[in-house]
Amino acid sequence: MTQEAPSKSVRTRERILDAAAEVLSRKGYAGTRLTDVAEAAGVQAPAIYYYFASRDDLVEEVMWTGAHRVRAHLEEVLAALSADTEPRDRLLVAVEAHLRYELQISAYTTAAVRNAGQVPEHLRERPAAEESAYSRLWRELFRDAQDAGQLRADLDINVFRLLLLGSMNWAVEWWNPRTRSLDDLVRATQDMVRHGTFAHP
Amino acid sequence: MTQEAPSKSVRTRERILDAAAEVLSRKGYAGTRLTDVAEAAGVQAPAIYYYFASRDDLVEEVMWTGAHRVRAHLEEVLAALSADTEPRDRLLVAVEAHLRYELQISAYTTAAVRNAGQVPEHLRERPAAEESAYSRLWRELFRDAQDAGQLRADLDINVFRLLLLGSMNWAVEWWNPRTRSLDDLVRATQDMVRHGTFAHP
Repeated sequence: MTQEAPSKSVRTRERILDAAAEVLSRKGYAGTRLTDVAEAAGVQAPAIYYYFASRDDLVEEVMWTGAHRVRAHLEEVLAALSADTEPRDRLLVAVEAHLRYELQISAYTTAAVRNAGQVPEHLRERPAAEESAYSRLWRELFRDAQDAGQLRADLDINVFRLLLLGSMNWAVEWWNPRTRSLDDLVRATQDMVRHGTFAHP
Repeated sequence: MTQEAPSKSVRTRERILDAAAEVLSRKGYAGTRLTDVAEAAGVQAPAIYYYFASRDDLVEEVMWTGAHRVRAHLEEVLAALSADTEPRDRLLVAVEAHLRYELQISAYTTAAVRNAGQVPEHLRERPAAEESAYSRLWRELFRDAQDAGQLRADLDINVFRLLLLGSMNWAVEWWNPRTRSLDDLVRATQDMVRHGTFAHP
């Protein structure tokens, strides 16, 4: 089977989406102007309406893509681990994968994280299904570690999971590669999980 | 010295600010409409312009007030502790004060937290000075505990501080008093600090 090269139209749509993700990740929902997206994509602003019915349609597609991709990425990373990886080590791997993907790899995910609470209700519906699936994935990671007796007995895994995801998501607001390496951030976050949740032998 | 009752004009301005904080905390910067603020304040929309030059001026005042008040509140709470309170206990008290203030007491602070990364640059300047002072306060709390030898030796207090504030700030996005008590959230967050940072004897 040969894969056909994407048509020019598909590539242009992709370029507009990439540009929108980038602008939205930096400027937020209120500050994202289609003229900026068009300029970053190298198209005329009206051309965007050939591919997306409205500014909100474009934003929704970026938000969905960001939520979808980080989930797909984490599933892939976890599936690639050897079968005998300890549940608590899977948790640490997930922390690293989430941070690197959100902060370094995907402007879509940065945009989805930063604007989740800012876009109007009707734009929340499609991404919400992806976010629920992502939450389930994290719940399973914590539950597996708990079932294996690897977490401290008094840990509230539901609240801790939300605190952890919050601390990682908020990093999109403050992390700056010029003042702190991503490696340092990954290590500190893993330490927080290790010390904050693991059962001590 | 007797304190004069605030004039009607001062009270109306206050009511508009309260309403703006409430709307902004729920709907975010992009979704905050002056008509909603006016309705919540019980004034005609054009009346708002008698007190604030623009929608952005009103938003800036809310953001500044939210940043200012949470800092003033924390300083007050810490000042009220007895002088022999251990540095690490001061840290736990600060966690509780921040969460309760942000989630339960002040719509201004909820609004400031939720919209910090969303408002245009020129609205960031005034609140930023308050936020820096607040950061310094937390840095001192961590440094005092570290200097007292109460934190684990390998802890990166700068990254942990940012992760902790992030996890607490993100709670404005997910915490729902109907599904989880604030007491539970406070306890879990304090546990995260206790287990995640304290030196074990």
